Amino acid sequence: MQIAVLLYPDMTALDAIGPYEILSRLPGAKLTFVAREAGPVRTDTGFLRLEAEAGLDELSAAEILVIPGGPGDEAVRADPRVLEWVRAVHETTRFTTSVCTGSLILGAAGVLAGLPATTHWTQLETLRALGATPSPERVVEAGKVITAAGVSAGIDMALRLTQILVGDDFAQGIQLGIEYDPQPPFDSGSPAKAPTHIVDLVRATMAR
Amino acid sequence: MQIAVLLYPDMTALDAIGPYEILSRLPGAKLTFVAREAGPVRTDTGFLRLEAEAGLDELSAAEILVIPGGPGDEAVRADPRVLEWVRAVHETTRFTTSVCTGSLILGAAGVLAGLPATTHWTQLETLRALGATPSPERVVEAGKVITAAGVSAGIDMALRLTQILVGDDFAQGIQLGIEYDPQPPFDSGSPAKAPTHIVDLVRATMAR
Repeated sequence: MQIAVLLYPDMTALDAIGPYEILSRLPGAKLTFVAREAGPVRTDTGFLRLEAEAGLDELSAAEILVIPGGPGDEAVRADPRVLEWVRAVHETTRFTTSVCTGSLILGAAGVLAGLPATTHWTQLETLRALGATPSPERVVEAGKVITAAGVSAGIDMALRLTQILVGDDFAQGIQLGIEYDPQPPFDSGSPAKAPTHIVDLVRATMAR
Repeated sequence: MQIAVLLYPDMTALDAIGPYEILSRLPGAKLTFVAREAGPVRTDTGFLRLEAEAGLDELSAAEILVIPGGPGDEAVRADPRVLEWVRAVHETTRFTTSVCTGSLILGAAGVLAGLPATTHWTQLETLRALGATPSPERVVEAGKVITAAGVSAGIDMALRLTQILVGDDFAQGIQLGIEYDPQPPFDSGSPAKAPTHIVDLVRATMAR
């Protein structure tokens, strides 16, 4: 099963690595990190480079496509070459997925027109402007398009996709294998739960 | 604040990238991925290379040390050069941390002697053999040594460390920024919660 994960400069690493850690363990998985050109891609903090094994020209079809998010999504949305690739690969997929603002790239590629979808909570209105119907849900399924909310939501999305593709037992096994029994120190992971002054702080920090 | 994250062949990527995504956002953070030699390091699935910016010789002190886990921990535990580096850097840290079987490396380096610690749930007895007192808790604090359970537990560990280092508001802000409001599809992320046949399956799959 060919899985393609797009990499691009100033992306958020966990958006890609969460789903990778799960989907790469599916039976028969062949997971390929793809970027505009093969080679190292620096992520948004400036401290990490992930290696793209393939350039866009080297992979034109996939059963699963994963588009991560991050501040670099804006440059990607302005890059017709990458958007064309996303559209073309989407035509071949069994599932097209995104994490965080990766859905804005799907939107810019025209993949989300009229579909319910989600993104990082600060970018729901941008998602609407790109033709989707924004949802505050953590994982949104719309036919073969599955979008996840901010950064860490890619883990939940990939487990759900595993459940769909392989079944409950396998998905539970993966969840236990990565010991995903979350115990965050606060119940503040969504704007509906965090204190107002924290929501305002993060919104200001992440304003574009 | 210098943060060092060890990379090594056949490590599990999410063990490193979970904490990286959080700790790299601490005020004044300078996060460096370090490996035996600088350059690309292939992770346990074979599908991903992470770039180490520095070799062991290039970084000898850190305020925070993060040791990820993965099947490659066994080779690291047999490598005196890396263990010596871990011991030496540990002498300089404010916090020494591990995720998953990274704690087995800390144990082999002599850092855990007599301390309570945790690891991937399948390796708790190996941890005991290395001199630690194994705990089934998800995040175990023992003075300046903080160990986390399997793979995804590094996210919870790093948020707790952020809380200690910078305070509740900042840690909540990071948690909201990465939208860490976990909603896994199953409540099966620990051996105490997963169905017995899933626990047996994963234990057999991960047997060494």
